[in-house]
Amino acid sequence: MLAYLGPAGTYSSQAAAKYLQTQKLRLESLPLRTIGEVIDGVNSGAYKYGLVPIENMLEGGVDVTLDMLARKKTRLFIIAEIDIAVKHKLIALPGVKLEEVREIFSHPQALAQCQRYLRKKFPRAGVLSVSSTAEAVWKLRKENLRAAAAIGSLESAAKYGLKVLAGDIADHRDNLTRFVVLAKELQIPRDKAVTSCVFSIRKDQPGGLYNILRFLAVARINMTKIESRPSKAVMGDYIFFVDFDGTPAGKKAAKALQDMQNHCDFFKLLGVYQRSR
Amino acid sequence: MLAYLGPAGTYSSQAAAKYLQTQKLRLESLPLRTIGEVIDGVNSGAYKYGLVPIENMLEGGVDVTLDMLARKKTRLFIIAEIDIAVKHKLIALPGVKLEEVREIFSHPQALAQCQRYLRKKFPRAGVLSVSSTAEAVWKLRKENLRAAAAIGSLESAAKYGLKVLAGDIADHRDNLTRFVVLAKELQIPRDKAVTSCVFSIRKDQPGGLYNILRFLAVARINMTKIESRPSKAVMGDYIFFVDFDGTPAGKKAAKALQDMQNHCDFFKLLGVYQRSR
Repeated sequence: MLAYLGPAGTYSSQAAAKYLQTQKLRLESLPLRTIGEVIDGVNSGAYKYGLVPIENMLEGGVDVTLDMLARKKTRLFIIAEIDIAVKHKLIALPGVKLEEVREIFSHPQALAQCQRYLRKKFPRAGVLSVSSTAEAVWKLRKENLRAAAAIGSLESAAKYGLKVLAGDIADHRDNLTRFVVLAKELQIPRDKAVTSCVFSIRKDQPGGLYNILRFLAVARINMTKIESRPSKAVMGDYIFFVDFDGTPAGKKAAKALQDMQNHCDFFKLLGVYQRSR
Repeated sequence: MLAYLGPAGTYSSQAAAKYLQTQKLRLESLPLRTIGEVIDGVNSGAYKYGLVPIENMLEGGVDVTLDMLARKKTRLFIIAEIDIAVKHKLIALPGVKLEEVREIFSHPQALAQCQRYLRKKFPRAGVLSVSSTAEAVWKLRKENLRAAAAIGSLESAAKYGLKVLAGDIADHRDNLTRFVVLAKELQIPRDKAVTSCVFSIRKDQPGGLYNILRFLAVARINMTKIESRPSKAVMGDYIFFVDFDGTPAGKKAAKALQDMQNHCDFFKLLGVYQRSR
């Protein structure tokens, strides 16, 4: 069973379908209501795999996912990543015209990503947040809202029998969301893999982060991502999410990982997996 | 005039009052509707000072603030920081009892910060997002909602004549939000100051971030914060917000700043100001 952040018709469900297809896996997939339910469900053994968004190209990291992966009690590994192109559409019930739209529903990130379009075309419309883009589309159908529109994907419009009023409405044309597949067992692909980890540094140590990144730099390992999140303990205390090219099966990366682990306050390997691009 | 993120009664207005009081400034303060309006208003010269939230101890950076400060067309400097303790209360109209509450309104961050309490005490209540904690409290009064509660500050309850149903409802007891005051002119305090900057690194450069942090490390300058945000250009491209102890009036820090600037793709000094703690 592959659990994912639902409802069906979201970008997450596209990512789930893409993963099952490329892996040629014949698995049922199950939409859940929150990222927390997906991660806790795989962690407790209720589902074999879980798929959640981890990063958006414009908005940055998905805080809930990052914070839950960093927790000590989450004992899961990333085994795959899937990039999905985010292409927002303005969606309405069949027959509804642009000029009839008084209210626009979507997920807060999607609304933020279409700000300029909304300000220009709908300066007087009400802009309302709901829990997902698919929820916004479904709401129009369920409540038969004829003076409203939703921002969502082509797939979600098709799924609920709605119509695309306008495409290309995002402020930035190019936008990707990265999803990860989580499982209990660490997997180590043969080659062209990336390693993800999270760590924290003792605050009183001068040059703390610099000293940790040094282990990657001296080994000439390419760091492909670094993202900080508050540790939630003290203002100014951070944990760092780092991705780098290489796997613990290789000598260089194995040594760098060992060195990092020895010099960090807290260190957790988050997974080793093939790049999606 | 000091513009701040309104409405009156939010944590932002507490921060504005604290700033004017500690600086003994006799200035009018003006609540605006969005962070964007505050920053654009100071940038265009409509207001002398602007006050916006920049970071929360639990949730991390305030994306809109960081993204707008990093923009080339924003020509503003941070001249002060103010930390405000966030103490969420469950607030309702006078006479309303806990067991009558069916809906709970607040800002999404405040709702996230009280998740455990809400799940335990109100497993069946509707949880609804509005644009600020003060807006949530005002909504109860304006619409005379007697089966609802809001999460907000003691100040907002007092302001609108509402009652605190429960205190200490946040999952983490300690929580701070940091606000900054923005102005057109760079100020450099004599001593005990922090310098904030933002930069990006050429992606093709191996060890890019490490090489930049080296300028601080070799000068034994203490980096107090590092935070990454997507550059919004390409997935995996980041800009970095860095704070360090010291001012460009000091030789060591001036040299490190110059070196960083020379080796970055993009570099912007965000301000020099005294620590609030």
